[in-house]
Amino acid sequence: MSSQPNAVPKAPRARRIFVDGPRGVRVPFRELTPHPTRDRFGRAEENETVRLYDTSGPWGDPSFKGDVREGLPTYRRHWILERNDVEEVDGRAARPEDNGYRNSAEEQERLERLKAEGRLEFFPKTPRRVLRAKPGARVTQMHYARKGIVTPEMEFVALRENLGRAGAFEASKDRSNVRFQHPGEAFGASIPRHVTPEFVRDEVARGRAIIPSNINHPESEPMAIGRNFLVKINANLGNSAIASSIEEEVEKMRWSTKWGADTVMDLSTGKNIHATREWIIRNAAVPVGTVPIYQALEKVNGKAEELTWEIYRDTLIEQCEQGVDYFTIHAGVRLPYIPLTAKRTTGIVSRGGSILAKWCLAHHQESFLYTHFREICELLAQYDVSFSLGDGLRPGSIADANDEAQFAELETLGELTKIAWEHDCQVMIEGPGHVPMHLIKENMDRQLAVCHEAPFYTLGPLTTDVAPGYDHITSAIGAAMIGWYGTAMLCYVTPKEHLGLPDRQDVKDGVIAYKIAAHAADLAKGHPGAQLWDNALSKARFEFRWEDQFDLGMDPETARLYHDETLPAEGAKTAHFCSMCGPHFCSMKITQDVRDYADKQGLEAEAALAAGMAEKSREFAEVGAEVYVKS
Amino acid sequence: MSSQPNAVPKAPRARRIFVDGPRGVRVPFRELTPHPTRDRFGRAEENETVRLYDTSGPWGDPSFKGDVREGLPTYRRHWILERNDVEEVDGRAARPEDNGYRNSAEEQERLERLKAEGRLEFFPKTPRRVLRAKPGARVTQMHYARKGIVTPEMEFVALRENLGRAGAFEASKDRSNVRFQHPGEAFGASIPRHVTPEFVRDEVARGRAIIPSNINHPESEPMAIGRNFLVKINANLGNSAIASSIEEEVEKMRWSTKWGADTVMDLSTGKNIHATREWIIRNAAVPVGTVPIYQALEKVNGKAEELTWEIYRDTLIEQCEQGVDYFTIHAGVRLPYIPLTAKRTTGIVSRGGSILAKWCLAHHQESFLYTHFREICELLAQYDVSFSLGDGLRPGSIADANDEAQFAELETLGELTKIAWEHDCQVMIEGPGHVPMHLIKENMDRQLAVCHEAPFYTLGPLTTDVAPGYDHITSAIGAAMIGWYGTAMLCYVTPKEHLGLPDRQDVKDGVIAYKIAAHAADLAKGHPGAQLWDNALSKARFEFRWEDQFDLGMDPETARLYHDETLPAEGAKTAHFCSMCGPHFCSMKITQDVRDYADKQGLEAEAALAAGMAEKSREFAEVGAEVYVKS
Repeated sequence: MSSQPNAVPKAPRARRIFVDGPRGVRVPFRELTPHPTRDRFGRAEENETVRLYDTSGPWGDPSFKGDVREGLPTYRRHWILERNDVEEVDGRAARPEDNGYRNSAEEQERLERLKAEGRLEFFPKTPRRVLRAKPGARVTQMHYARKGIVTPEMEFVALRENLGRAGAFEASKDRSNVRFQHPGEAFGASIPRHVTPEFVRDEVARGRAIIPSNINHPESEPMAIGRNFLVKINANLGNSAIASSIEEEVEKMRWSTKWGADTVMDLSTGKNIHATREWIIRNAAVPVGTVPIYQALEKVNGKAEELTWEIYRDTLIEQCEQGVDYFTIHAGVRLPYIPLTAKRTTGIVSRGGSILAKWCLAHHQESFLYTHFREICELLAQYDVSFSLGDGLRPGSIADANDEAQFAELETLGELTKIAWEHDCQVMIEGPGHVPMHLIKENMDRQLAVCHEAPFYTLGPLTTDVAPGYDHITSAIGAAMIGWYGTAMLCYVTPKEHLGLPDRQDVKDGVIAYKIAAHAADLAKGHPGAQLWDNALSKARFEFRWEDQFDLGMDPETARLYHDETLPAEGAKTAHFCSMCGPHFCSMKITQDVRDYADKQGLEAEAALAAGMAEKSREFAEVGAEVYVKS
Repeated sequence: MSSQPNAVPKAPRARRIFVDGPRGVRVPFRELTPHPTRDRFGRAEENETVRLYDTSGPWGDPSFKGDVREGLPTYRRHWILERNDVEEVDGRAARPEDNGYRNSAEEQERLERLKAEGRLEFFPKTPRRVLRAKPGARVTQMHYARKGIVTPEMEFVALRENLGRAGAFEASKDRSNVRFQHPGEAFGASIPRHVTPEFVRDEVARGRAIIPSNINHPESEPMAIGRNFLVKINANLGNSAIASSIEEEVEKMRWSTKWGADTVMDLSTGKNIHATREWIIRNAAVPVGTVPIYQALEKVNGKAEELTWEIYRDTLIEQCEQGVDYFTIHAGVRLPYIPLTAKRTTGIVSRGGSILAKWCLAHHQESFLYTHFREICELLAQYDVSFSLGDGLRPGSIADANDEAQFAELETLGELTKIAWEHDCQVMIEGPGHVPMHLIKENMDRQLAVCHEAPFYTLGPLTTDVAPGYDHITSAIGAAMIGWYGTAMLCYVTPKEHLGLPDRQDVKDGVIAYKIAAHAADLAKGHPGAQLWDNALSKARFEFRWEDQFDLGMDPETARLYHDETLPAEGAKTAHFCSMCGPHFCSMKITQDVRDYADKQGLEAEAALAAGMAEKSREFAEVGAEVYVKS
């Protein structure tokens, strides 16, 4: 692992900037300043700078000289300590089974041998001391928000959501906002033209947004998940029983945040889960989520029925102390719902859901996640780990979408949300899965209604089952739509979904497809800042500023590469034509003639425009039709 | 070019079948028979066969021994002749300028030299004699339809739309249809469970569907474009001023129909347009569309203002005789609308629109396409070339979507549709372009309203401008949505859009992305046959029938390849686990336990299911909550 990776997409005109807020808040952005526009007379006109949300963390800062063995700076630590509600305590002692090794002499020996041979490396600086809420205290962002306290985390989020613009988009006249037809309006959603820290606080207090921020992950840069903010995306990482290594997983994390992942989930199974997670968290500037039942299952050698509340609880503490920012918890998989899946085409496809179902059936009892839910809340409130209430009964095929099992579980998730909120715990709700387009909105509407507007976090949904190898696309369609309807975060799907483990290219393809879906949703929701990016890119395209078109693109490297495949010469990048039409004729060039014509027409054209040509078109058509009939 | 290419995706269980109808109609399908399901006791249960629409033509038939120098069989010819309304006439004499060579001694010499050197090969068997309607006759499918005549073409379409199932889907109990919430319902759209030839005739007679089928393209297999049929996709081909060759273009056509293109458009510019098109048409079993103004422009050396009605008309005749099935004609670019584009972010981006705008401005006149529209109708009716009324003023950026210019032109297209229908000409309407999600439905609704339900044929739309290199994805999102809303055919966009010329992989990526969009739309529209494909694939997936999952996929080759990257061993393809969870634990396996449990519960579970567990979930939750509170 290089100490200073190529952490942001290559784009000559892009630079890392920081916008400073109060209390040491420094928010990074990726800033792109296009070339000036040159008119026919060579005169230059400046083009507006575009700022983009930057998820690469310090790795994306050229002045940062970091090392993955050191981890990232813990700059959020003093905000946490200043609140005076945490104490430093001895963490839970590490155990061999945390990494999947049995508590036997043989396995211990195996573990020691791996370490000695350098085949299993632990993060060198893992702190022995961890932070925890003082007895009786709750240290969640929701707790502060409800007390009326604006935290530095909220300040950070506000600046970030405004894309670092003072006054944000108050003066913006973009049209999409004006014509905004948000299907979720019934729920009173609306994105302010200027996100204030107070607005962030209010959204968090109401439970409409969360800021996942474990006090033991002071390396993370705050971000909000809520439908009145930019739509976020998550990338899944994780070794598996068959392939992958710690180095690969850490690099995957940096790779996915390079391309724009707003959070990552570590879904590791098998051996070395604890060690892998430590590497990831210490090097992640984005929130990290996990599914603790995966690790708990390893501790009982994969036998779901041997899981106990004690083992699970111990795993939660282990992960709370390590700094996981949100936990997927499938507490809605209730015993009476399980038979509802028996007649499905694809039964239970959620791994967590299956584990819980198996446990419930074996014991013929409600799961310990459900029966101990309040205790989980109390625990999570001590570290500010957010709930991501898992949809263990999500549909695994189009045939099973929006069925009784799914909606029954959703109602329970709504009930659990209220209980978590009683404990000031931050909550989001996970959603499907596989859903045909015409059933997507029903999913969103139900979620908002029964889960009291807690943020929705969906996997896709895939809008058809028939394209294995292309599920980043089948699901980007559903993701864009459900994002528009109000989903706050979209969990990516890679081309390898259903087929195998994603490699580097797959992770990138998944992230980019989801960045597209999220941005398309931002545009459709009328996010006041979203349109500016499209405008800048389209203006560059129209004016044949090829370099700007590449640099402003979501993936400047690929855009440049594709262009160069057809027209490799450097000159072609400043040429006033493109390969589709060639040098001889160009449709965009003609528009200049149109503009000249309109200028010449002067007042006449202006008047026509002002009068609204669309309404006038019928008159014109009638005149025209007469001419026409005679011809 | 090989004489027998690998014309269909590789899938061991797939075979080409034919379903015979009356009058020699033989409709090809791709049939996939999955392996039987084996239960725990080794008992076999047959799985339903899936039939897919097959666009590969005779090239996809293993028993066909063809040669691109021979062209495809002209099996439709006798249907045409039997109608007794056409005559065989001497075609228009070929001219050097048809291929972009000037009528000068020098250019003639150049052309002869190219031919002599074998660098420009003409299709060997081009017939000198062509078919044309007898004087006063109209030979369009709409003409027959309105007379109450069911043509063999309509018989073919009906069988094809039913996916070759006798009785089609009358007995199908798929849920999606039951829950169908078609946003276009206001227009009375509804897909029958069994498409009869009479239904096809009726849709064509009303102008709600077209069957593009030039009488001089007897090699083509009939297909319908209309919103009460399966959603179709088009792939664009075409050389360009800079790259590409005839061989490449023909091979691109076969390649795109291999992956599922329902029609192709030849958008060639520059030299050798006529020759290229001849190769394509003679070897295409799908309808071929063109934009005749592109060729006309070459004939005036690229100077738009020098275009004349006579040159354009001559080009139309040339292409009618060659067998082009539909023409994009930008007759809605009217002089008064042109200034409406002056204030746009990206002006006029349609190449045809720009050419017309330039002409209109130069002459300060309405374009000859508009003033001579009735003559065009009379011409097209003699060959049954369908209109694809072009959207020359479509938006080229999110900022310009749904603006006055676009909608003014759309109204004119609606007026022209009525005129074309007066001549029994078949018509579809082209649509945008770049449109954010929240403005897509307005596009569709307006088109249906002002164009009298003529089929809509859209390019994308792209739902954001910011991802050059990924516009197959930005646009697949919009394409799926507008397909659901009622668009009949989706024109593909490749990853190279805006950047360069698509290569083989780009064409495939574009086609697959659009097949996904079209199928997702079919599902959401509740097409009675669409769900069956998803069900078969998901059942295979759930039962770990890996080979079936690959073979049933839209791209079996890629699915197999991706799987093998992680688990290359042959054994893994029959293994009851996948690489995501590994051999030890598998969520899908657990479902069997659930089913056993449900079986054990027996009547109890059945009763619960029958009573509707969703309604009961609240009761259960109350009981559960009580348990829970005590815990």
